[in-house]
Amino acid sequence: MEGVDHLAHERNRSQFDVNDMKIVWAGSREAFEVSDRMSRLVANDPAFRKDNRVHLTRKELFKNTLRKAAYAWKKIIELKLSEEEAGRLRFFVDEPAYTDLHWGMFVPFLKGQGTEEQLQKWLPLAYKMQIIGCYAQTELGHGSNVQWLETTATFDPKTDEFWWPGGLGKVSTHAVVFARLITNGRDYGVHGFIVQIRSLDDHSVLPGITIGDIGVKFGNGAYNTMDNGVMHFDHIRIPRNQLLMRFSQVTREGKYVQSDVPRQLVYGTMVYVRKTIVIDASNALSRAVCIATRYSAVRRQFGSQDGVETQVINYKTQQSRLFPLLASAYAFRFVGEWLQWLYTDVTQRLAANDFSTLPEAHACTAGLKSITTAATADGIEECRKLCGGHGYLCSSGLPELFAVYVPACTYEGDNVVLLLQVARFLVKTVSQLVSGKKPVGTTAYMGRLQHLMESTCKVQKAEDWLNPSIVLEAFEVRSARMSVECAKRLSQFTNQEEGFHELSPSLVEAAVAHCQLIIVAKFIEKLQGDIPGNGVKDQLQKLCSIYALFTLHKHLGDFLSTSTITPKQASLADDQLRSLYAQVRPNAVALVDAFNYTDHYLGSILGRYDGNVYPNLYDEAWKDPMNDTAVPDGYHEYIKPLLKQQLRNSRL
Amino acid sequence: MEGVDHLAHERNRSQFDVNDMKIVWAGSREAFEVSDRMSRLVANDPAFRKDNRVHLTRKELFKNTLRKAAYAWKKIIELKLSEEEAGRLRFFVDEPAYTDLHWGMFVPFLKGQGTEEQLQKWLPLAYKMQIIGCYAQTELGHGSNVQWLETTATFDPKTDEFWWPGGLGKVSTHAVVFARLITNGRDYGVHGFIVQIRSLDDHSVLPGITIGDIGVKFGNGAYNTMDNGVMHFDHIRIPRNQLLMRFSQVTREGKYVQSDVPRQLVYGTMVYVRKTIVIDASNALSRAVCIATRYSAVRRQFGSQDGVETQVINYKTQQSRLFPLLASAYAFRFVGEWLQWLYTDVTQRLAANDFSTLPEAHACTAGLKSITTAATADGIEECRKLCGGHGYLCSSGLPELFAVYVPACTYEGDNVVLLLQVARFLVKTVSQLVSGKKPVGTTAYMGRLQHLMESTCKVQKAEDWLNPSIVLEAFEVRSARMSVECAKRLSQFTNQEEGFHELSPSLVEAAVAHCQLIIVAKFIEKLQGDIPGNGVKDQLQKLCSIYALFTLHKHLGDFLSTSTITPKQASLADDQLRSLYAQVRPNAVALVDAFNYTDHYLGSILGRYDGNVYPNLYDEAWKDPMNDTAVPDGYHEYIKPLLKQQLRNSRL
Repeated sequence: MEGVDHLAHERNRSQFDVNDMKIVWAGSREAFEVSDRMSRLVANDPAFRKDNRVHLTRKELFKNTLRKAAYAWKKIIELKLSEEEAGRLRFFVDEPAYTDLHWGMFVPFLKGQGTEEQLQKWLPLAYKMQIIGCYAQTELGHGSNVQWLETTATFDPKTDEFWWPGGLGKVSTHAVVFARLITNGRDYGVHGFIVQIRSLDDHSVLPGITIGDIGVKFGNGAYNTMDNGVMHFDHIRIPRNQLLMRFSQVTREGKYVQSDVPRQLVYGTMVYVRKTIVIDASNALSRAVCIATRYSAVRRQFGSQDGVETQVINYKTQQSRLFPLLASAYAFRFVGEWLQWLYTDVTQRLAANDFSTLPEAHACTAGLKSITTAATADGIEECRKLCGGHGYLCSSGLPELFAVYVPACTYEGDNVVLLLQVARFLVKTVSQLVSGKKPVGTTAYMGRLQHLMESTCKVQKAEDWLNPSIVLEAFEVRSARMSVECAKRLSQFTNQEEGFHELSPSLVEAAVAHCQLIIVAKFIEKLQGDIPGNGVKDQLQKLCSIYALFTLHKHLGDFLSTSTITPKQASLADDQLRSLYAQVRPNAVALVDAFNYTDHYLGSILGRYDGNVYPNLYDEAWKDPMNDTAVPDGYHEYIKPLLKQQLRNSRL
Repeated sequence: MEGVDHLAHERNRSQFDVNDMKIVWAGSREAFEVSDRMSRLVANDPAFRKDNRVHLTRKELFKNTLRKAAYAWKKIIELKLSEEEAGRLRFFVDEPAYTDLHWGMFVPFLKGQGTEEQLQKWLPLAYKMQIIGCYAQTELGHGSNVQWLETTATFDPKTDEFWWPGGLGKVSTHAVVFARLITNGRDYGVHGFIVQIRSLDDHSVLPGITIGDIGVKFGNGAYNTMDNGVMHFDHIRIPRNQLLMRFSQVTREGKYVQSDVPRQLVYGTMVYVRKTIVIDASNALSRAVCIATRYSAVRRQFGSQDGVETQVINYKTQQSRLFPLLASAYAFRFVGEWLQWLYTDVTQRLAANDFSTLPEAHACTAGLKSITTAATADGIEECRKLCGGHGYLCSSGLPELFAVYVPACTYEGDNVVLLLQVARFLVKTVSQLVSGKKPVGTTAYMGRLQHLMESTCKVQKAEDWLNPSIVLEAFEVRSARMSVECAKRLSQFTNQEEGFHELSPSLVEAAVAHCQLIIVAKFIEKLQGDIPGNGVKDQLQKLCSIYALFTLHKHLGDFLSTSTITPKQASLADDQLRSLYAQVRPNAVALVDAFNYTDHYLGSILGRYDGNVYPNLYDEAWKDPMNDTAVPDGYHEYIKPLLKQQLRNSRL
């Protein structure tokens, strides 16, 4: 960040204290300090360089990731980093690696499903990385008919390959494997087992097991740094005590015994993983928005005044696409923060055998996972388009960000499937209202159903749309009416499952409405608390309004068809939105500075902190190996004979 | 396509003649036959293999494309292919190459802008590929202030690099260069010049010129096969007669003289290029839809009945995302066909000095370029998601299709900028109505403005939405009312430009409404003609209704806020849409078979004609170079020391 700051004029005009906003974004001063320290540590160490990734072959790329993972682990040990610091360091290394699955899935799953005895045996090995684990649940084809005998696994090699597990293909020594537990001839359903898959001596694949990498994935780099794998078993024997037995055991005699540990604890893990995904969405979206915002302030096109063209960020069309994404990044941040609280709450309740909030917490995390990842994937690509042609260059950082992000829409529950789960919960909530069951948590508003069905929106002038309670009620009314409409139409079917199938597109829309309400509600809730810092809360209020009113505009059909608002009120919301864009405009660059991303982490010439884009874009081009020679390899064989009309005799 | 056809049951249940539909899709029997022949020629020639692209380094990839381009040219000469055949052959080679720019931009531009004398000199060279041309118009930064003197070009190397031209970086010998023409001290604006940039002897870059490749772009392959280039000039001298002088000349004495050839002819070229882009959109979207449809019929998930899981294509959520894209592919096809007619019409009128339809034709092609490319880019990614996790593998064909397609949203006019041009034209059309000017072509409906402002939608039951005139009028009413509303709000500004700037997000939406109307109208028009073949017209009518009703649902806010329809009518449209999905379902696979794509062209294991997906996915994975060894390169340096707790002494 040396040299002239080409964006200084933008930073000088902002109307809030960016350092205070950094604390808000990070969640706390402590979290900010850890992130700041770790991001600089990574950025300043040439071993973590990543700008050369696009020039590596897949094998080189993969080997380079192995090196970085080992180097990061060495640093973590040398510097005696805490678990939190180590997590942040890996985050800023910014490269999918087998360690993500080892730490993010294998270890948590062991902790959740192992008995005390099992934990004592396996956890120390995993913590020291004396074993490396992955998580084998998905299968190649359509079936889930894995057959599993107590100590013998028989797979049909044609259909029952495990397929996709990250870290499986080349690195992991152990896997948590999911399979049907069959003992004494009875099928007890899917259970998790620890299976050693590679030798700890020479890394060879153990007999009876076949493992490979599943091939090249989307993007120049992205997940190609990861060895997503395929595996099949042929009569593998594992010891009985490698069934993870916290919830159920198989005795020496082959008897299946359920423990008294409640199985609902498994849902706690799902809440944990999906909460993490929502926070990741705010990371990825904020990163794209940071790049697009800075470059929109640098780039000038058309509309010349005084001989200088207009900054692209001054165009309303640019603002109306960019600022809602900026607002969404903050909105997802705060809903992620709230999910963090929810997870703690759920965990405490589960420990006290209180399962009452679990279905609601599960539905809400599933839904939020779905809509934040979908919006983030689309948002990254929109940011890329907002950068014009240069967004198509890998040096913009955006193509790779997109390629590495999009699988989030599919993994840990396909986004549409998750929304259908939410819809099922909503319809159930509505149908139970008559029996007097009180809806809890994020569905509590359904308890005021009669009011919501009758209420009319009070907006009379544009500024009324800045009133949080008016906005909140509009989102509640829309969502409640959509759920009720779905429930009403469902009740006309004699077969409920058939009705659910037939109406599923509308059910998905009702679920989206409910989840958007949650995001709006949690943003408003955040703003009701104390937020220190000069001008900070004011900016966040504007972003909250932008998120809500943009969402309203985008889903206007819902709001109008449910008669939640009138066309006139919709038009006033648009007026207010334009006014908000103008108010955010001078703060836009500072609002993305608040993410505190290093140039290393951003990995984008367009998004450079100093805004010195063009000379660097130019210099970067010349470093490309294609420019090693002016006359390209292939000229003599394929260009010259063509120009000289001598193709006839060429071997091509 | 040997072996068992796993999709035979799907093909057998279809209700129309797929061979007749193939003719409709291709446009004519002749067009079908040429395409069919060329696609098989390419598919059956191992020289055009493309499944290995993802494993090549950029340099290898580029060299491989040089080889294919030379080989294709050799074939074209050997087989004495016609211009049409050669074009189709290059299309099915399916790899961006310098030849696209030579044939698609350099040659047409010469033809459009050169004098008879210039054509006699340059065209034979270009036709025989004795020179290779590119098209240098875009610049690196924000400025368009290229300074150009009659025979001396002085560029400021800091700001005035040409940047992006395809084929420039490594291959082209000549370029059409755009620069300001300055003679006798006066600036006559931007003109095109032919500039030789490389030696025809040894391909070295000529003195005073610097050329390079601009680096890696989005995707594993995609446009990385192309040498998009950067170029700057330092006091280059070119002969006076290399100014393209059809429209204006510079005499021996330096005098600037305009010819009597109308400059509007230039717009004819833009109509031509954008028409081609619309047809390309239908190619790209149909390809993605073909893959997603076939794989949705192969893949089974959940909902087990009789021990077999449900085909994914039977889920309403899948249908509600996939079938509108299928309908869009056909809709874009027919609007492209109509643009072909429009281009011919415009050309004939221009030849007769009739410029009356030009502004409308220009606005309509600009708008159609914008909305078809935007919908196609989004649609390809949606198809990828519809394939679940496997869509993320490059062997699905979808990641590369997306990466190679998305620049269409930016090149030849950024999509949002183009919509603003359309909006300007619409507002002008509305404002001229009072003065009695009769709107022409696709804006003719504005002539019935009073009727459209007063009319009410006649839908009373779901089937009414199958009535083409009711659908058409709904789209006309929505579009007209949105344009009028924009014009009304604009008139409240004292400064029109300021108003246009302020209201631009709404103007963009009005433009979208107008362009969607054109697509609906042209689909309906197509169906009014004679379409032979058993059941063919019936299927197309369903697709037309799906396109219209899905668009209505997606933009419901427009239709309701303009009071074009009522919420009740919207709900009836949704009912009709669901019924249409059920009717299209048994025909889905046959409807994508009608595109007549070879497995080579599709380049997708998921989209294989025979539906034999899983064994091939599995086999393909094992072919990956990562699987050459079970223990990966890097094990000894980076995995073993970690597992053995010996990182401390490792060099990483």
